[in-house]
Amino acid sequence: MNGETTNHNMEQLLLHIDTFVFDVDGVFTDGTVTLGDDGQYSRTYHTRDGLAIRIALQAGFDVWIITGGKGQSIHARFHHLGVSEIHCINQQQKEVQLEALMKKHHRTPPQLCYMGDDLPDMKAMQLCGLRCCPADAADDILKTANYISPYLGGQGCVRDIVEQTLKAQHKWQQHSLTISNH
Amino acid sequence: MNGETTNHNMEQLLLHIDTFVFDVDGVFTDGTVTLGDDGQYSRTYHTRDGLAIRIALQAGFDVWIITGGKGQSIHARFHHLGVSEIHCINQQQKEVQLEALMKKHHRTPPQLCYMGDDLPDMKAMQLCGLRCCPADAADDILKTANYISPYLGGQGCVRDIVEQTLKAQHKWQQHSLTISNH
Amino acid sequence: MNGETTNHNMEQLLLHIDTFVFDVDGVFTDGTVTLGDDGQYSRTYHTRDGLAIRIALQAGFDVWIITGGKGQSIHARFHHLGVSEIHCINQQQKEVQLEALMKKHHRTPPQLCYMGDDLPDMKAMQLCGLRCCPADAADDILKTANYISPYLGGQGCVRDIVEQTLKAQHKWQQHSLTISNH
Amino acid sequence: MNGETTNHNMEQLLLHIDTFVFDVDGVFTDGTVTLGDDGQYSRTYHTRDGLAIRIALQAGFDVWIITGGKGQSIHARFHHLGVSEIHCINQQQKEVQLEALMKKHHRTPPQLCYMGDDLPDMKAMQLCGLRCCPADAADDILKTANYISPYLGGQGCVRDIVEQTLKAQHKWQQHSLTISNH
Repeated sequence: MNGETTNHNMEQLLLHIDTFVFDVDGVFTDGTVTLGDDGQYSRTYHTRDGLAIRIALQAGFDVWIITGGKGQSIHARFHHLGVSEIHCINQQQKEVQLEALMKKHHRTPPQLCYMGDDLPDMKAMQLCGLRCCPADAADDILKTANYISPYLGGQGCVRDIVEQTLKAQHKWQQHSLTISNH
Repeated sequence: MNGETTNHNMEQLLLHIDTFVFDVDGVFTDGTVTLGDDGQYSRTYHTRDGLAIRIALQAGFDVWIITGGKGQSIHARFHHLGVSEIHCINQQQKEVQLEALMKKHHRTPPQLCYMGDDLPDMKAMQLCGLRCCPADAADDILKTANYISPYLGGQGCVRDIVEQTLKAQHKWQQHSLTISNH
Repeated sequence: MNGETTNHNMEQLLLHIDTFVFDVDGVFTDGTVTLGDDGQYSRTYHTRDGLAIRIALQAGFDVWIITGGKGQSIHARFHHLGVSEIHCINQQQKEVQLEALMKKHHRTPPQLCYMGDDLPDMKAMQLCGLRCCPADAADDILKTANYISPYLGGQGCVRDIVEQTLKAQHKWQQHSLTISNH
Repeated sequence: MNGETTNHNMEQLLLHIDTFVFDVDGVFTDGTVTLGDDGQYSRTYHTRDGLAIRIALQAGFDVWIITGGKGQSIHARFHHLGVSEIHCINQQQKEVQLEALMKKHHRTPPQLCYMGDDLPDMKAMQLCGLRCCPADAADDILKTANYISPYLGGQGCVRDIVEQTLKAQHKWQQHSLTISNH
């Protein structure tokens, strides 16, 4: 957590969150993509992050994915976890997509927790009340975040912010023990 | 090992084990799954854990797999190692499956060593005498375990508990040097 | 950075660079290749390096790939990022290919930044003004480099040198925030 | 290097080596295998180890692979590097295969450098003058080795012992700079 957010402020921010917005590469993954001779891309996800997404959805939170990443596997992964707003954009800027989703779902900045790791996330991040990143985000993102997870991309940074949010709202205990694995 | 289990207790617990119960993701693996554009999941296993499973089976131990993980490769991996009880469950809770297996095979808690890493393992774990987890398990699991392996998930935590158990029962030396690789 | 290059010299070197020459294995990757039963090779790239390549190209820099690595995925990866000079050589020495490209594009040593990690890069590296390598390069390469990135191969060493070069030429800010993800 | 081998002894041992014998899993790899839904195994190799094998072969050394590992990719990998003795054994013990190769090629223990990481390597290792293992080998192998590489399996332990051997015999410089990448 950088200087401008005290622990007290963090608790306040967490209480108003009802929507998580996530980048994929460098957040759900360690930032790497694997490419085979057949031209297929694959990405490596952490099951503990996946469980967190399913618990958040069961507890009534919205989860939105906005990524510039290429590859059909992204859609498959998040569809499997139950996410309905999955946007793999190409030419478009992320902040344009985010503004469209905020309008569609009637969300204001304090309701939104954004986690991203690199420059294309910068402007979208600034539209959100809680601006998070993994410990190994790009320098400019580390400076923009008001919460820096101690976890690296692909190693539990998603679980960290979801678990903290649900615990702050007393929704973790209730939902985490009744969910099956993934 | 947490506070409630002394070294002396651990040795006692190991002497009664004749059955290993394992979760897959985060135990046999580092918790990650890789997903390709073609929708295939793949998982990464450690050969030294695989060798331990084969030694345990040759020495007469039972090995049960109970996982919520998706993907046909899980069945292929453990079938290849010689495991017969492989349960990939979806809706069901793990503790329900474990109770069914305990009834079928006439096992009581002191005979069972369970290793898991995340919340869906919690209740199943509590049915077993020896409750193990890798060093990087989720916080609530670390608190529930009476043995925390120094090894991470996917990096030898299975080998660690199997080797310790067979050594405590003087069965490691005899079986480990006559088995071929895998 | 080794002894012969002071910070002042590094800044001077960066100002003249208009072309990046990269090896692939151990630079864009951690040096590993994955081989499946079907004979397919796959390699794992970092998306933050990929973004840097796209920013460099957009800012008008040339990017040349010279690799001895086998596998069609190399061509696919760099073609996707917009690179046009991609040379997967087999019998040929890298320095021969590099000299041909320098002649074709009318480049002199001070314009060239080379990053490589192992012995086959040695002679090609010596043709370039800025000779870079990842922190985990082979010993002989570490000794030949006049800039050693603090990042490991596959973990951002490409991003590091590209970002430093564009920042020294005041081209990073302008191009990095208008580019979409990859 | 454990107690029984001094630096002086190591140099003496290296001078007589003309044949490298390698296990695969945990030596050329980090000990993991990846299994997909389609039942395919894949393994991850380091290109710097691959280069070392090709340099050793060019310098006139023999390289023998004896592995219990399953998967056609093992044969493909080492055939690609130019190795002719590749033995993927199943039921057989490794030492039986090694003795057959020693007889076929008229080799005595002081000529052989063996690198392995786990129990199935134990007896074969004891037939060789130079008994090596990666830094993360199984405990019993660490005790049997007379040289423990500072490198982990899959992260350069093969390159380490090959480079040391060829340097001791003044064959590294000559062959390492004339070989192309792989």
